[in-house]
Amino acid sequence: MTGDRKPAVCVLGTGLIGGSVLRAAVAAGYEAWGFNRSEPGVRAARADGFDVSADIGAVLGRAADRDALIVIGVPQPALDTVLSDVRSFAPACPLTDVTSVKKPVLDAVHRHELGAHFVGGHPMAGTSESGWAASTPDLFKGAAWAISVDPGVHADPWTRVARLALDCGAVVVPVLSAEHDSAVARISHLPHVLAEALAIQGAGGGALALGLAAGSFRDGTRVAATAPALVRAICEPNADALLEVLDDTLRVLTAARDSLRDTDSLAQLTEAGHDARNDYDTFRRWAIEGIRPGDHDWLAKLAEAGRRGGVIEALE
Amino acid sequence: MTGDRKPAVCVLGTGLIGGSVLRAAVAAGYEAWGFNRSEPGVRAARADGFDVSADIGAVLGRAADRDALIVIGVPQPALDTVLSDVRSFAPACPLTDVTSVKKPVLDAVHRHELGAHFVGGHPMAGTSESGWAASTPDLFKGAAWAISVDPGVHADPWTRVARLALDCGAVVVPVLSAEHDSAVARISHLPHVLAEALAIQGAGGGALALGLAAGSFRDGTRVAATAPALVRAICEPNADALLEVLDDTLRVLTAARDSLRDTDSLAQLTEAGHDARNDYDTFRRWAIEGIRPGDHDWLAKLAEAGRRGGVIEALE
Repeated sequence: MTGDRKPAVCVLGTGLIGGSVLRAAVAAGYEAWGFNRSEPGVRAARADGFDVSADIGAVLGRAADRDALIVIGVPQPALDTVLSDVRSFAPACPLTDVTSVKKPVLDAVHRHELGAHFVGGHPMAGTSESGWAASTPDLFKGAAWAISVDPGVHADPWTRVARLALDCGAVVVPVLSAEHDSAVARISHLPHVLAEALAIQGAGGGALALGLAAGSFRDGTRVAATAPALVRAICEPNADALLEVLDDTLRVLTAARDSLRDTDSLAQLTEAGHDARNDYDTFRRWAIEGIRPGDHDWLAKLAEAGRRGGVIEALE
Repeated sequence: MTGDRKPAVCVLGTGLIGGSVLRAAVAAGYEAWGFNRSEPGVRAARADGFDVSADIGAVLGRAADRDALIVIGVPQPALDTVLSDVRSFAPACPLTDVTSVKKPVLDAVHRHELGAHFVGGHPMAGTSESGWAASTPDLFKGAAWAISVDPGVHADPWTRVARLALDCGAVVVPVLSAEHDSAVARISHLPHVLAEALAIQGAGGGALALGLAAGSFRDGTRVAATAPALVRAICEPNADALLEVLDDTLRVLTAARDSLRDTDSLAQLTEAGHDARNDYDTFRRWAIEGIRPGDHDWLAKLAEAGRRGGVIEALE
């Protein structure tokens, strides 16, 4: 930080998530500004009183000048372009992202030789809408915000990212990138895949089926209303982890099908499913305390705590 | 009906659905009473001021005396016992049910030689809770209530059942039993199966996955909180239709898996799923008019209208 200036945050990509980070950062007292590629996106943000521009050089020049924490909020396909720009204009700034997959982003960051100041992030929040218009400063209140504790992460940028997440109202889940990607394949990407498949079966029953549909179908297909391009941008970069989970899901569903066909029973599926949902309903986060960024073995200790459901609610 | 008495309704099984029918019927001015097998269930209903007894002979004797419409609200496994009792004590009463599957109930009714006065029914409403305590007179407000128009159904009992459904605040979807079972396999039973499978994958990711889970996982697994015995009682009697839909779901998911593995793309799945959810979001019921129960070909005409999304909102 430079002198007594407030911490600075520079958000690249002001859609639903990036836009909400910008709003939440400003609300928390940060000096914050942003970049958006599209002129309508820039105009919408400026109309709401936010400092957003389509001039990436100027936006990142200011970030370098102010030692801003740069938050990458562009979709995965635009990542390489944005990383090139960061490398050109602000290579020494602390850097994070809010993308739904972590290992491919980490690999890209290393390709662009930006690994030294990078700490991956992923706030677990969203809606089926998208764009600046859907953004809100309260999006992250009470949400989990995954922050990478991969080997090699430095304490200074890590603390900057964690503080921003906490100031946005979230709790911090420390996680290895690869473990994050496996977990979100299970609880975020698979729900999308199954919602699409369920919607297809419902509509396949025509007007009669859609007319009889009630709460279980409505809730089970809710995320199928998300734009296909957005679902693909979320799921496809996590193909390896998603394939593993999808294969296992096919095994579970095939076993249930065989059991229903051969023994008229769904006992095993329904009991395992009910137990699993009960695990979710009774899961409680617990507060990680006493592990300070930079302490001996802090990354491994935080990774272990996060794996067991621990979250950081405050920085000492 | 006997003289100027109000129409009478006798509900057998006062759990969530049967109990809600009893409450809604009383609220609508019917003379209504019920049977429950369990003494705690009886006590709970009586404590709320409802006329419920565990004496099936007395309950059905009164139904025979008052020409009551008998509503079977017991779970599928208890069906045969209850039908034996109806055959013994009130074989000439109009008879309906509120079970989630229609063809197996129809077959059972014929086995008990009660087909002449029977009209199958299925209100599309529920919660993940069960029992009298969860019942409410408003459960059916705005809901679809499927009513059978199978060949051989008589106009008089059909009209009694349809009037009760409308008086409970529902709209009537006329449907053939076999087509009903195929439709609910798609929009009610498959959602249960997929929710169980999703819950299993989420819990398989341990505390980390459950701690990162947000809205898509919560909504996609909601009905996995339903008691396994209840899910089985709903799904297993519809095994034939559910197997067909489950096989097709496995084909869709396998194709998506192959596409993701071989071409890194979920394009086909996400576009078809989004279109399907859009069909659901834009589906609008329309009012069937001008087909009177008992008119020439009324059953076939109603079946055809129901198939195209038509509902009955009032009886002429």
